[in-house]
Amino acid sequence: MTSQVHPAPMPFTSEDYAARMTRVVHDAALAGLDGVLITPGPDLVWLTGYRPTAITERLTLLVLRLDRSPIMVVPTLERADAEAADGAAAVSFADWADGADPYELAGALLDPSSRYGVSDSAWTMHLLGLQRQLPHSSYVALTSAMPMLRAVKDARELARLTAAGAAADAVYEQIVQRPFAGRRERDIAAELAALLRRFGHEQVDFTVVGSGPNGADPHHEAGDRTIEGGDIIVLDFGGLMFGYGSDTSRTIAVGPVDAEAQRVHEVVRRAQQAAVEAVRPGVSCQQIDRVARAVISEAGYGDRFIHRTGHGIGVITHEPPYIVEGEQQRLVPGMCFSIEPGIYLPGRFGIRIEDIVTVTDDGCRRLNNTSRDLRVVD
Amino acid sequence: MTSQVHPAPMPFTSEDYAARMTRVVHDAALAGLDGVLITPGPDLVWLTGYRPTAITERLTLLVLRLDRSPIMVVPTLERADAEAADGAAAVSFADWADGADPYELAGALLDPSSRYGVSDSAWTMHLLGLQRQLPHSSYVALTSAMPMLRAVKDARELARLTAAGAAADAVYEQIVQRPFAGRRERDIAAELAALLRRFGHEQVDFTVVGSGPNGADPHHEAGDRTIEGGDIIVLDFGGLMFGYGSDTSRTIAVGPVDAEAQRVHEVVRRAQQAAVEAVRPGVSCQQIDRVARAVISEAGYGDRFIHRTGHGIGVITHEPPYIVEGEQQRLVPGMCFSIEPGIYLPGRFGIRIEDIVTVTDDGCRRLNNTSRDLRVVD
Repeated sequence: MTSQVHPAPMPFTSEDYAARMTRVVHDAALAGLDGVLITPGPDLVWLTGYRPTAITERLTLLVLRLDRSPIMVVPTLERADAEAADGAAAVSFADWADGADPYELAGALLDPSSRYGVSDSAWTMHLLGLQRQLPHSSYVALTSAMPMLRAVKDARELARLTAAGAAADAVYEQIVQRPFAGRRERDIAAELAALLRRFGHEQVDFTVVGSGPNGADPHHEAGDRTIEGGDIIVLDFGGLMFGYGSDTSRTIAVGPVDAEAQRVHEVVRRAQQAAVEAVRPGVSCQQIDRVARAVISEAGYGDRFIHRTGHGIGVITHEPPYIVEGEQQRLVPGMCFSIEPGIYLPGRFGIRIEDIVTVTDDGCRRLNNTSRDLRVVD
Repeated sequence: MTSQVHPAPMPFTSEDYAARMTRVVHDAALAGLDGVLITPGPDLVWLTGYRPTAITERLTLLVLRLDRSPIMVVPTLERADAEAADGAAAVSFADWADGADPYELAGALLDPSSRYGVSDSAWTMHLLGLQRQLPHSSYVALTSAMPMLRAVKDARELARLTAAGAAADAVYEQIVQRPFAGRRERDIAAELAALLRRFGHEQVDFTVVGSGPNGADPHHEAGDRTIEGGDIIVLDFGGLMFGYGSDTSRTIAVGPVDAEAQRVHEVVRRAQQAAVEAVRPGVSCQQIDRVARAVISEAGYGDRFIHRTGHGIGVITHEPPYIVEGEQQRLVPGMCFSIEPGIYLPGRFGIRIEDIVTVTDDGCRRLNNTSRDLRVVD
């Protein structure tokens, strides 16, 4: 059984990628940058479709400048792979062989006293190599300079995120029909991973099964604990489908539900609902966080909501905008992010409810639509 | 069937990790550094046993200084996981919650005008955050400042690398008994991955199956090409076992062997053998590369040996020492690296032979010991 609802979308074309590269250099100029330097990872995938087999110590660097056409520095060994990327038609290539100095090659493509945005996850050894090669240049993390670079999704990206969300929902509907009591967390996690693949994900990124006290650690993945009757369980899973992310959480109960757990779940559900209802263009990210936090604080659990309310999602599952106190960015139609308040009671249980939403002209649309009630499973 | 030859070794203890941390700060002082800053990845695994579930935009930073005991900056959410690491006993922790400035916290643990070595793969956004917080500090990539930090393995590390190599050899002995003709590269690759796991690997990193013309691209992984009689096939696979890497290559032939392929294979075999025989303490890394290259150049294929001769291996599969022209580092007993010359004829085939070796008091010992003859398979 596979999801028939979402056939594979048309691939992005070299024109799509070229348009993104053009937009980036223009936005960079507006942000006071002379160009941007992109290393393997989500920025490079988004701009060129190129995803090297492995990210290694060998420098790969896409140089985007307003006054030049795109050029990518690549190890000679990987040139053929890079040239085969969907967005390669708009890029020229300069390769360096083992033993050569890649920073000398890259430096020759840069202005010696310019300011560049650099991919957040570029290796420090590469940045230090460039700083050494061009001591009068300056650099800023791309997310600091252009935080919203990938934040506003176009219609084709939204279609992919919608498909990924629907697939994650289908996974949830399947997993809650399975038995939980007497099975280990990691067995449920393996089943979640298999279901994500069955419903069309090409990559599984995380399968959190936090049962009983393990649920009180928001980053617990899944372990050897055997699930028991009476357990509250946080499920939080996602991955990539058609190159775009899914991420949803629901909390379920095995057998009879403890009265406080039911009460706490209702607080989280109301907090999540209130935050979703607060989303509209022009509202700040931190305001969404405050709305969720206020509901939980009023119920007396403010100090047990120990993480931000959400994160953007696109070609990776964590990216701007971050829905957190201090983030004054205003929401714009097309932004996609999670809303995932939680309450964590150490030694007892955790509860989290998470949907991906996309900002619309007058509010938002949820990309996850399974029931947010406390589901009781076997 | 699993390998019975290598039972799981005793885990490293907190004392082992503490000794490594102590050695690093002393070596750092000798290298002119006031301390080292370690982010998630191989350095952190080696120093503390801590491997976060995912490497994200949230700063995790182990600060090692000669004048202070080790302290690790961690996101609040991940503190419990970090404290559970095997090496955590010697480390104190400082956590930061979402919305706080992690660079302010990290900066307070650093001397404002000191010089630090930083993990090569630390995210650029983190380095720029520290540079902004402490504008009079300076930074150098750890591999530039202390290239041989993890290069010399102790007996317990060698035991793990030996076990990983023996497991990879067992995989090779199995795969060559299987049919190749008529199957796709990716089916062979999937079988290699399953065999690596069956023989004890906890992680599969790469399974190269380069058949016919695909073998002429050293970084080709495995695709949809159907293997045919007469194909020359490069197999190159490895992963982690007990936390340490394997990496071996052999070239095989399906059915009757083309005369030039046989001749080229013999050149590569002699080059690899000569390089292995050249390994002994005091010889430079580049000298090993030159020995392999000389054999291939004399045979007229110098311009078709398009990569370095080898790379170090430990908790990851690529690390110093690199066996490449320009690397003047002298070999020291306990170093472990690959020797993997190759010849690549575009449009036709590639040939590579690779063993991991470890430097001994008077030469070296191979950690891969399968036959290096051109094996003919079905």
